[in-house]
Amino acid sequence: MVGLGAIGGSLAWQSRLAGISRVVGYSPSLAEAVAALKASAISEIAESPTKAIRGADLVVLAVPPGPTLDLIGRLAPSLEPGAILTDVCSVKVPVMTRAATWGLGDRFAGSHPLAGTHDSGFAAAHPDRLRGCVVYVCESASSEGPRAARGVMRFWEEVLEASPILIDAAAHDRQLAWTSHLPQAVAYALAKALADRGFGGVSYGTGARDTTRLAGSSPEMWLDIMLQNRDPLMEALSSVESGVATLRHLIETGDRQGLAQYLEIAREFRRGIDR
Amino acid sequence: MVGLGAIGGSLAWQSRLAGISRVVGYSPSLAEAVAALKASAISEIAESPTKAIRGADLVVLAVPPGPTLDLIGRLAPSLEPGAILTDVCSVKVPVMTRAATWGLGDRFAGSHPLAGTHDSGFAAAHPDRLRGCVVYVCESASSEGPRAARGVMRFWEEVLEASPILIDAAAHDRQLAWTSHLPQAVAYALAKALADRGFGGVSYGTGARDTTRLAGSSPEMWLDIMLQNRDPLMEALSSVESGVATLRHLIETGDRQGLAQYLEIAREFRRGIDR
Repeated sequence: MVGLGAIGGSLAWQSRLAGISRVVGYSPSLAEAVAALKASAISEIAESPTKAIRGADLVVLAVPPGPTLDLIGRLAPSLEPGAILTDVCSVKVPVMTRAATWGLGDRFAGSHPLAGTHDSGFAAAHPDRLRGCVVYVCESASSEGPRAARGVMRFWEEVLEASPILIDAAAHDRQLAWTSHLPQAVAYALAKALADRGFGGVSYGTGARDTTRLAGSSPEMWLDIMLQNRDPLMEALSSVESGVATLRHLIETGDRQGLAQYLEIAREFRRGIDR
Repeated sequence: MVGLGAIGGSLAWQSRLAGISRVVGYSPSLAEAVAALKASAISEIAESPTKAIRGADLVVLAVPPGPTLDLIGRLAPSLEPGAILTDVCSVKVPVMTRAATWGLGDRFAGSHPLAGTHDSGFAAAHPDRLRGCVVYVCESASSEGPRAARGVMRFWEEVLEASPILIDAAAHDRQLAWTSHLPQAVAYALAKALADRGFGGVSYGTGARDTTRLAGSSPEMWLDIMLQNRDPLMEALSSVESGVATLRHLIETGDRQGLAQYLEIAREFRRGIDR
């Protein structure tokens, strides 16, 4: 397990509880690694990513998208023969491309568990965080790609009791641009507007808190995601931009019927995703 | 109590528990009124708003902003001498103006408890919903306005254990345009964009759910709020619109440093409102 934050720490922990006795963990923060060891979320601390993957059957990269791309290149030469590699990033085309570039097509399958949190670090890890989640898995186009994907899906199913869904990387990135990266970007934009207006000291209700909750997330991770999924996200942001303009126009002109229709479509959608 | 939804029902209920034996309730839905009576949230059902206010020392209008304006005019002639009147709307200039127009300046003070919910109806009422909340109170400019405001503030303090804050109506509406109506509008715009893109059937994580949660609210109430607080809300919406455009530009140009700064300001703001 390379990375022992909210995701990596939880995956390691649940793996141990599910009966995998040897879980070697690496974190750039020694304090995080020690915390993970004390919690028995890992069985050993490794001093470097390269040392962490020695003897591993499965290597999970649980770091932000930028470091994930770097690590694929750095670790490719020292991966055990027969080992498979996966990641947990929210953008899949760049990691799949990077794995292919480094000749890992046969041994790499990308993962993206839908189990984010705005908290970060091992303090935000717990065994249940990813149990039973939906997880997207991308197989590479190489001849042995499906074998690697099957191994990764088995990990999610058997160890995490998760529901893996096989998906094309480009389709995944287009979908997530809307369903995840866009809400995140909108939360940032709303919080930024409120910050600029100087309304920091007044009372906020649960509505404003929930709508901006995602803005509390780690900028490091989201910088990478936004820049790596640039084109699909820009399209989604344009849509919200013109949607806000439409809403403003309906309010400006006092178009009660048009406004009612707009709000009703939004409400129907929101109710639909709870079903 | 005119209106027995999430707010009115909760206010009535807590009033009863706080020792006010006679709480007369009116709801346009008889089923809601019966539910409130069965729960002992009210002591009597009235057949009409006019009948509900007979003999009342304090009248609370707990209905959406549009009906609130109508009711101020309808009830003004039959208000008991000495009775005071308040409302719970999220926009205060229009109600204060309406009360003054109907000669109620001496007996009206506006309230706005910060205790919204996207649920509606008496089913969403419970005694604790508004207990201990922050509540804005607006006094009218008439000579006896402060007396009415003191009475209304005492109700919030003694019965609801709430923290009333006296505020100028126009200042209130400008502030709430940003802190409440803007998050609501943004949640609608985001949900509308997702609805238009046709991503209804796919998996949404907690991030998208939280960011769009407010879009599940009653369109009826929010139509009124948006149209009644038009000018301040339009300014706030413009700000988000250009904020989204800025974000899109930073992503498009790959301006990592500018993007990091943008996200960091948003994050700082978000962390600040939890303190």
